[in-house]
Amino acid sequence: MSNQLGTFLSLTTFGESHGAAYGGIITNFPAGMKVDFEAVQKQLNRRKPGQSKIVTQRKESDKVKFLSGIFENTTTGTPIGFIIENENQRSRDYSHIAEKYRPSHADFTYDKKYGIRDYRGGGKSSARETMNWVVAGALAQQLIPEIKIQAYVSAVGDLVCENSYQEMDLSKIDETIIRCPDLDMAEKMIERIREIRKEGNTIGGIITCVIKNVPVGWGEPIFHKLHAELGHAMLNINACKGFDYGSGFEGTKMLGKDHNDIFNPDGSTKTNYSGGIQGGISNGMDIYFRVAFKPVATILRPQESIDKKGNPITVEGKGRHDPCVLPRAVPVVESLAAFVLADMMLLNLTRKI
Amino acid sequence: MSNQLGTFLSLTTFGESHGAAYGGIITNFPAGMKVDFEAVQKQLNRRKPGQSKIVTQRKESDKVKFLSGIFENTTTGTPIGFIIENENQRSRDYSHIAEKYRPSHADFTYDKKYGIRDYRGGGKSSARETMNWVVAGALAQQLIPEIKIQAYVSAVGDLVCENSYQEMDLSKIDETIIRCPDLDMAEKMIERIREIRKEGNTIGGIITCVIKNVPVGWGEPIFHKLHAELGHAMLNINACKGFDYGSGFEGTKMLGKDHNDIFNPDGSTKTNYSGGIQGGISNGMDIYFRVAFKPVATILRPQESIDKKGNPITVEGKGRHDPCVLPRAVPVVESLAAFVLADMMLLNLTRKI
Amino acid sequence: MSNQLGTFLSLTTFGESHGAAYGGIITNFPAGMKVDFEAVQKQLNRRKPGQSKIVTQRKESDKVKFLSGIFENTTTGTPIGFIIENENQRSRDYSHIAEKYRPSHADFTYDKKYGIRDYRGGGKSSARETMNWVVAGALAQQLIPEIKIQAYVSAVGDLVCENSYQEMDLSKIDETIIRCPDLDMAEKMIERIREIRKEGNTIGGIITCVIKNVPVGWGEPIFHKLHAELGHAMLNINACKGFDYGSGFEGTKMLGKDHNDIFNPDGSTKTNYSGGIQGGISNGMDIYFRVAFKPVATILRPQESIDKKGNPITVEGKGRHDPCVLPRAVPVVESLAAFVLADMMLLNLTRKI
Amino acid sequence: MSNQLGTFLSLTTFGESHGAAYGGIITNFPAGMKVDFEAVQKQLNRRKPGQSKIVTQRKESDKVKFLSGIFENTTTGTPIGFIIENENQRSRDYSHIAEKYRPSHADFTYDKKYGIRDYRGGGKSSARETMNWVVAGALAQQLIPEIKIQAYVSAVGDLVCENSYQEMDLSKIDETIIRCPDLDMAEKMIERIREIRKEGNTIGGIITCVIKNVPVGWGEPIFHKLHAELGHAMLNINACKGFDYGSGFEGTKMLGKDHNDIFNPDGSTKTNYSGGIQGGISNGMDIYFRVAFKPVATILRPQESIDKKGNPITVEGKGRHDPCVLPRAVPVVESLAAFVLADMMLLNLTRKI
Repeated sequence: MSNQLGTFLSLTTFGESHGAAYGGIITNFPAGMKVDFEAVQKQLNRRKPGQSKIVTQRKESDKVKFLSGIFENTTTGTPIGFIIENENQRSRDYSHIAEKYRPSHADFTYDKKYGIRDYRGGGKSSARETMNWVVAGALAQQLIPEIKIQAYVSAVGDLVCENSYQEMDLSKIDETIIRCPDLDMAEKMIERIREIRKEGNTIGGIITCVIKNVPVGWGEPIFHKLHAELGHAMLNINACKGFDYGSGFEGTKMLGKDHNDIFNPDGSTKTNYSGGIQGGISNGMDIYFRVAFKPVATILRPQESIDKKGNPITVEGKGRHDPCVLPRAVPVVESLAAFVLADMMLLNLTRKI
Repeated sequence: MSNQLGTFLSLTTFGESHGAAYGGIITNFPAGMKVDFEAVQKQLNRRKPGQSKIVTQRKESDKVKFLSGIFENTTTGTPIGFIIENENQRSRDYSHIAEKYRPSHADFTYDKKYGIRDYRGGGKSSARETMNWVVAGALAQQLIPEIKIQAYVSAVGDLVCENSYQEMDLSKIDETIIRCPDLDMAEKMIERIREIRKEGNTIGGIITCVIKNVPVGWGEPIFHKLHAELGHAMLNINACKGFDYGSGFEGTKMLGKDHNDIFNPDGSTKTNYSGGIQGGISNGMDIYFRVAFKPVATILRPQESIDKKGNPITVEGKGRHDPCVLPRAVPVVESLAAFVLADMMLLNLTRKI
Repeated sequence: MSNQLGTFLSLTTFGESHGAAYGGIITNFPAGMKVDFEAVQKQLNRRKPGQSKIVTQRKESDKVKFLSGIFENTTTGTPIGFIIENENQRSRDYSHIAEKYRPSHADFTYDKKYGIRDYRGGGKSSARETMNWVVAGALAQQLIPEIKIQAYVSAVGDLVCENSYQEMDLSKIDETIIRCPDLDMAEKMIERIREIRKEGNTIGGIITCVIKNVPVGWGEPIFHKLHAELGHAMLNINACKGFDYGSGFEGTKMLGKDHNDIFNPDGSTKTNYSGGIQGGISNGMDIYFRVAFKPVATILRPQESIDKKGNPITVEGKGRHDPCVLPRAVPVVESLAAFVLADMMLLNLTRKI
Repeated sequence: MSNQLGTFLSLTTFGESHGAAYGGIITNFPAGMKVDFEAVQKQLNRRKPGQSKIVTQRKESDKVKFLSGIFENTTTGTPIGFIIENENQRSRDYSHIAEKYRPSHADFTYDKKYGIRDYRGGGKSSARETMNWVVAGALAQQLIPEIKIQAYVSAVGDLVCENSYQEMDLSKIDETIIRCPDLDMAEKMIERIREIRKEGNTIGGIITCVIKNVPVGWGEPIFHKLHAELGHAMLNINACKGFDYGSGFEGTKMLGKDHNDIFNPDGSTKTNYSGGIQGGISNGMDIYFRVAFKPVATILRPQESIDKKGNPITVEGKGRHDPCVLPRAVPVVESLAAFVLADMMLLNLTRKI
């Protein structure tokens, strides 16, 4: 169904930008896990608005409350319900767009599809929905504590981090507000976003994610291949335009003889163009992938557009917006990856007798 | 579940490369559609081995037999069962790899995951599975006859078709065996594949797909956004390494002011960086996306590898293999796109009262 | 998944008896329906504890709060999230059973299955969960306003209402606290429950449900036959032991010649042993079915039992319990029926072109 | 979806009475199980037409062919596809009913729902579909070899077997063609069916099923309670009108004090009114339930009815029909029970860490 993430371990979500609350229900989470609530909130805080100068200044505490499925700090195997209340709805910021369609937003398509639209803050199409995913992903990560998932900003516009992930120290990701572990490049990216912001403009970029320590055997061919599940999750992130893994689009230029990953005696491989996945199943090597994000559609400058009746109008972004979604999308990418992996781990428990 | 494609309209499949047959069951296909059986077989023939000099020479007639769900040439609303018998299994071609793991194949991961593997022709991991998808997609296309779906080869290795789809005559796609509508580039691509093939090597590339006439409103946010469904389907194709749509990875370099698609009074847009999808829902503009394919892993040259016990061995592809999957993948991409769109069309019937 | 009701229209739920709240998310509810909030709360109040002398005296206001999916009193087509806070948790009532297994409760089986159990008030196994179903069912009923669904108590112990539903005035169901439209029988039932209660004992019975005005064509063979969906929903109600529809168990004694329902020229039938369903699909006649409930397991008298370690102990129900679940189960049966029917209505929109 | 049985382990089916074949695909069946093909065919033969004088004389060999998912007699973890070809379609037997609606059949409802109907032999509504279920159930039984599932005919019309299952020797079930282990009663039942048959009439009855050795912990509350899953499966059998388990409808007459099952120190219970299930989860005691079947609708005598246009007509069953479905439904009940249990077993593998 359309508000459900996951194949077996699943997250069902609700919420709109200016409604009372966001929330979700996690199904098929196993019993017996001690919950680290702080780790969940910490990941939420990495996604929170107002955390730095280069993100939106909307003030929200984004505190999650768990309502069920956890007893004496331990999961009980029953559904985990949670909510995150919206606190800082300034709906009047949006009254001016009730009848207008903003370019490259979902206003037009929601209206046509459903015949009605909660226009306040983008309603259901707002990226505040990703809070739900972070909660679920942060719990899922605790189910698979040995798996290390690290995402970082690898490009902002044409500022592309040329170093491979192996050449950088990923422990430095959070040392800058842009979350790029190449600190020199990080400075340039931050400076670029500041400029763009002053112009009331926005900019896109790429997030790279690296996953270590996944055992051999996770992923469910034919239609839930591990990379397809990761790709499906990532492509649902607001503003996402593309996904590739391992050698990706670049690998299309290679020849088979060079692209094939030759085995070592222990089953590991000498190269890793496969990106840790063969035939849709993890092979024990690092999994790595890229996620492309377009520039945010809301710009703080006047644009020509139309209203519901097709009349020409002018729209201009007001209020509090992100000039670049990338730094706040980093924990979202990690959370979705954690959720997909925990899902595949559980499914794999049933595969042989 | 892992062998099911689609959210509502669904295809459940079975089959292995050297088993008795492939086949599938299509669920939730509406009653009352006259079936054009010839159109289904025609699309299957575009995927068939042996169709040209640049593809595998395995001989299979790939004839589909429908077993249920169609009465007096009309769908009855009940499940549509079908099979395609394997005819040309030369399993002895594969006895030499029963205990061996081929580099960048699924041999190793299937064995580790399931503890057993039908090693003949790659077993379940063979791309013959895509026949099932073509059958389902060709029927789905008939449910949405007004939608025009055209895929073509836009890159072979570093031979990249620089023209956009608007600049080419897509009716020429099938004029060459490589299925690139830029006929000059097509010649170069074919020549390149011939060379590569002589060397016993393989090469990757990119398929671009263009979809016209999709009405506004198809796609199911949050987790079945139209592009995420397309991406999910494509990423499950054998050898696929990446997917992007609209402005895609290139669009990450743009600024919001330039990337936003400004409306015309009729709701169409002056540019189409969105790729026909906003907020996960079709907006009536052309949908277009790219699918990246790695070079085929089976090469006809000796490679170092290991056997089940980790002993060093040498493997060498024998038998009949594709030097480049792209021309045969074109109908697969189209079929999956048709299936996803028909699925979204049916779901959309229930969205408002 | 285990906390999801419905095939297409679906309800995902969470909550435990003494947790912070119950709640749920309704998926695939169409856009454009004006919501009658009062009707929802009214149906919840019919299920509420403390509503009469013959039910539990736990004090709860059972007020539902809708958190999403409704804008300006109209459904938007996006997920409908709701919660109902628990207010009157008296968890100390249950500390005495933390280590004990009550006879014919779920204490033993939950502990063995999950290795942990929220023992307060039965935790997840409490019938307070049915509040969630009433919310969803009351909304679903508004989607199909022409369908009239009426459930009533047709037996309490061996006090069996001999009149068929056609022979009674169903508008009188709520005239007595037992919810039996045969007012003389209702008095006897109430008296019987009062006696049973004084003894600290409990009693079972049967609820009959009648559904009028269902159009021809709802129900999804093979595995979602209309009666199978109704039966599946009802069998999930706490304390439910059986379900039959139309002629039911009694009909097994009849011969085909007498049991067949002969058609009138308009497609209606002269008799209705089929119970309004043929081949799993509604035929336009009244649908009617029976649901069997066992006597409540919690009795206010000492019983022998065991603790977690298998030691013999004595348990005695304390606190506030129902001597008979039937009157409060009436709105639950109606709500589940409404939800199943709305689900089948939506599915039926896609069945022919 | 409507042609899918099971929550995790799933069977997707196709086929019509006079189409080319029946068949199905089993998903999520674990790898590594040696398949006993003979046991599958043996269970199919117990369902086969023509096996005795009291069932239909249609001649079919009902041989199943497995097409995938099994390699060297062992399951591979990939989808198991199978078909059973129809051999003895005598479609001309049915041409007389193409435009007619038979009383209490699905002719009328299928026509109205889908706008088209394969009228030959009931098309999709034929009980030949249950062959698919027997194949899947017979394989599922092999996954849980320690579980003993035995169904038998406990009533034919008003001939009711008064002995409880504990009082009979269930190894005698197949000693008579009616499959009732009370051999005296069996004789009476057979005689009754012979009489009924001579009159061209049909008769209903009840099947009881007993399941031994289910471990504690199978079943998935809230919405996949073990008894609800069993009931859902059984209610989908053609001609099924009701289901109850444990004390069932009779238990509604009991008081809580008597109905509660008191524990022994080992967790077993002194009585078993619960029918082996508490809170929707198996408790280790015997599971037992009843399934009600109406008399077959096809009678070999003239009946008044209507045609598609509402004109009065006469129909008369021709060809080869069952006077009583019960003996052939016994393996169907067992197969569905086996499938449900294997499904719940697999799910339970994921419930705690």
